[in-house]
Amino acid sequence: MQGNRATCDGPSDPGRFLKSRAGRGDDAAGRMAVGFPVAVVLPAGGTGERTGLATPKQFCSLLNRPLISYTIETFERVPWIETIVVVVSKESLVPMLHITQRYHHTKVKVVEGGRTRHRSIFSGLRAFCAGGGGSPLPRPEVVLIHDAVRPFVDEDFLLQITLAAKEQGASGAVRPLVSTVIAPSSEGFLDHSLERAKYRGSEMPQGFLFDIIYQAYQRCTEFDFEFGTECLHLALRYCGTSARLLDGPPTLWKVTYKRDLAAAESIIKDTLSMSVCIIPGVLAQSTELASKLQKYLAANGTTVDIFPCVKGKKELLLKTRNFIHISESVAGLWDAAEMGKSLGEESHGLLYPVVIVWVHLYTSEEDRSPAGKDPELTAIKELSTTFRKDNILLYGAQVIHSKVPELWERSVERLSQITSALIRDRNSAFTGQLFKA
Amino acid sequence: MQGNRATCDGPSDPGRFLKSRAGRGDDAAGRMAVGFPVAVVLPAGGTGERTGLATPKQFCSLLNRPLISYTIETFERVPWIETIVVVVSKESLVPMLHITQRYHHTKVKVVEGGRTRHRSIFSGLRAFCAGGGGSPLPRPEVVLIHDAVRPFVDEDFLLQITLAAKEQGASGAVRPLVSTVIAPSSEGFLDHSLERAKYRGSEMPQGFLFDIIYQAYQRCTEFDFEFGTECLHLALRYCGTSARLLDGPPTLWKVTYKRDLAAAESIIKDTLSMSVCIIPGVLAQSTELASKLQKYLAANGTTVDIFPCVKGKKELLLKTRNFIHISESVAGLWDAAEMGKSLGEESHGLLYPVVIVWVHLYTSEEDRSPAGKDPELTAIKELSTTFRKDNILLYGAQVIHSKVPELWERSVERLSQITSALIRDRNSAFTGQLFKA
Repeated sequence: MQGNRATCDGPSDPGRFLKSRAGRGDDAAGRMAVGFPVAVVLPAGGTGERTGLATPKQFCSLLNRPLISYTIETFERVPWIETIVVVVSKESLVPMLHITQRYHHTKVKVVEGGRTRHRSIFSGLRAFCAGGGGSPLPRPEVVLIHDAVRPFVDEDFLLQITLAAKEQGASGAVRPLVSTVIAPSSEGFLDHSLERAKYRGSEMPQGFLFDIIYQAYQRCTEFDFEFGTECLHLALRYCGTSARLLDGPPTLWKVTYKRDLAAAESIIKDTLSMSVCIIPGVLAQSTELASKLQKYLAANGTTVDIFPCVKGKKELLLKTRNFIHISESVAGLWDAAEMGKSLGEESHGLLYPVVIVWVHLYTSEEDRSPAGKDPELTAIKELSTTFRKDNILLYGAQVIHSKVPELWERSVERLSQITSALIRDRNSAFTGQLFKA
Repeated sequence: MQGNRATCDGPSDPGRFLKSRAGRGDDAAGRMAVGFPVAVVLPAGGTGERTGLATPKQFCSLLNRPLISYTIETFERVPWIETIVVVVSKESLVPMLHITQRYHHTKVKVVEGGRTRHRSIFSGLRAFCAGGGGSPLPRPEVVLIHDAVRPFVDEDFLLQITLAAKEQGASGAVRPLVSTVIAPSSEGFLDHSLERAKYRGSEMPQGFLFDIIYQAYQRCTEFDFEFGTECLHLALRYCGTSARLLDGPPTLWKVTYKRDLAAAESIIKDTLSMSVCIIPGVLAQSTELASKLQKYLAANGTTVDIFPCVKGKKELLLKTRNFIHISESVAGLWDAAEMGKSLGEESHGLLYPVVIVWVHLYTSEEDRSPAGKDPELTAIKELSTTFRKDNILLYGAQVIHSKVPELWERSVERLSQITSALIRDRNSAFTGQLFKA
């Protein structure tokens, strides 16, 4: 078993969220990476009773998008994966089709599942066979089976699982056990405890030669269909195939409880906040502010790029989902608005919300106080409402370039804290507000 | 084994965060609940390498307070628990003493532990025995052993564990297994999988008659001290005591990865946001606004009380940590400030941040626009800085009572969203801001 390289539980491919959909152009080259057809079956028929929520957990929203869409995205990004069969209950067929359309999941085929997990997986596999209802999908050589509620898997690990399945017939992700496993007596007393180091927790994804897992399902019993939990066990029992086990990263964990939704959202937010683009205005104070902000944000681990002009440079804009736009006058708001419009046209907010913080820098105290008027207030409120439709979150902030160095430093620090919090939290309740640093 | 009643993973005692420290007055009555002395040993020497963070996870901050302080609080709230021995590494002795002082953890005794978990637990137990260095603590009849990184345990479950330990000699919390447990061959292939229903994950807390667990540690081997993980196993092996196993709620889970910190914080925030107190102004529009806010917040599951006057009614104030103070004039800010001062004097923010949203209700459009001056801006900024010292987060919001019903409804909705978000997130970066609804 290979060592587990990741100690932290962030996605080991932090760039994942930034790969544009256009990146799929090299599908042919991508497919070459494995050299044989690979498909995915994603059982998503669970009721999610353990979350304590009314909505099954795979359909719960994270940043306004259902969890299952994140899991699908994980596989759609991989060029050598051709088809993703999502298996849902009858009631979820229409909502699931709506999700695939809304988020442009073009590799997905939705099929109806059975009463139990194993029945649903078998329904998914039958979509590749004639007689399964409708015209069959092209049969893959290797099929990956995953959970709809494990949204974070990186391409590297999928490749390992796939190649091991091709070589061995079956493969599966495992993780060290978090708790000691004990056997209770029938009266509820400790009978014995297992030696933790000798066992592993079986996780997902698992990979199989299609013919092996399909045959295992054809041969297995009603009891297996009803009470079985483990595909690897079926392959072993009915086809004599002993799966190769690979240590997976901790991010493979299953979203089981309500608290896991918060954990998943936090991982997504952390990853989305990893890079910021600052667009300074024309004056020296503005450049100074940009570099001070950069320093502050970089100290918290964020990668910050400063681009004085982004007009017409779409490729620059699509590299991040966080923008700080500094202007020395209200007129600058229209530049920020133009940028937002352009990001909207590119559907940059389709999968993840985009944050634009427009900073109005008053170059002297007199400009701002004592009148205290905020002519931009109405404009920013209206713009933010328009942008919300494209999942672009626009916030405003004001900062005064004081001649007193201590005051200026304090304002910059406050501004940094405010922009950091806005970018990290992506809270739509605060769009259109004008924060004062 | 008894059934698991909780399906959701919020604390089963949601009122926990609101019990005042004054509630400890009935210690004598509380102790009667069990009728024998009970103490806790809390090993907290872990390095937390799995979180991927520099700080060991028990010292990571949740809402500006270290995780271990939440766990300690869980036991301090229970009147029949007399002493909590926290065992830390040598380097953590001083920081840990600082934590107990800062958060008034009066039942805690801090001792130095050993190199492994079992050595540390034994160090903790020795604090109750002569010759363990210093004067020994009163020896308990039952000792509970817990993890510093499992902050949510309710009193009911602690009582079950304690009584079972007293009766049986040993007891422990168990949970159903989330993953199938499999045994790999030495070459990394699947050897066999265990039947999930026959096993349980061993969790914490565990309870023991003091004499049994102390004897087990005196008898156990160097190998046990070095590689053992399970106290229940030692009691069985060295004292022949077979522990009673009790199904615990899902909240017993162990904070292991960075994502678990986000999950724990989310549980705390959810619980803190469960109740809100609205203090309306004197005019009819203000009362109307209060009841509209109440309706909106209640629809999201929040309990909302409206109290027209809270002056001098400390007991009312201490029932919640969230306040919406509505005023029809700037002068009303001083009432909110007085309330904040009074909450500060009561140390109401000692363990959990308190939120005050001061809402300035303009009773006609003309009052607010077109001048657009915000005379309260400076005042609220300064007040918020002062209150921060007492962990009281002050935010401002403005709303205009429009004569156009649709506009008024829209403003109320926006205000509801803003106040909800401020109360839920408790973000200190936004204190002193004046939000416009």
